[in-house]
Amino acid sequence: MIKVSVMYPNSSDANFDIDYYCNSHMPMAQELLGNSVKGSNIDYGLAGGAPGEMAPFIAIGHLMFDSMESFQNAFAPHAEKIMGDIPNYTNAQPQIQISEIKL
Amino acid sequence: MIKVSVMYPNSSDANFDIDYYCNSHMPMAQELLGNSVKGSNIDYGLAGGAPGEMAPFIAIGHLMFDSMESFQNAFAPHAEKIMGDIPNYTNAQPQIQISEIKL
Repeated sequence: MIKVSVMYPNSSDANFDIDYYCNSHMPMAQELLGNSVKGSNIDYGLAGGAPGEMAPFIAIGHLMFDSMESFQNAFAPHAEKIMGDIPNYTNAQPQIQISEIKL
Repeated sequence: MIKVSVMYPNSSDANFDIDYYCNSHMPMAQELLGNSVKGSNIDYGLAGGAPGEMAPFIAIGHLMFDSMESFQNAFAPHAEKIMGDIPNYTNAQPQIQISEIKL
């Protein structure tokens, strides 16, 4: 199983509409990606590791797939629509992390 | 519910012993933190978002807790032992992300 993590870096001028992300963007993405999606999570940044430090990422969305191929096949036909929605909830440029789920 | 994500940045000279991390470090940390830990995950970086790009993080360990206070109370007495084990599996300096789990 793999996890695709879409990570929105924090900064003093970054904004992020978490309600839109949870209630509109992620449901839309999951509907387009269909049953290739095996699970999902949304993390909303609260803090970093040191007192008073901000979270490195404002928000992180995770989607799980059986394999890299399954993700790529599901995502490619809808990439433009999913990525095109990003400016509707943030001015941050996401970093992508694709991971093997070890535990 | 909150998630404490310990994120090990990737770089060309970074090393990471994923077997030690999965089989020794995380079990040790979870035993010390006890039943305040409500869940855990380990992600092992495979790739970034662009073809041929490396994952931003070599590995990410996640631990879930009921609240920030629950995490802090469980972690403080064992911080030195848990952090002191890091050089046994990596030369990377972790970033900490504390998140509210929205989904």
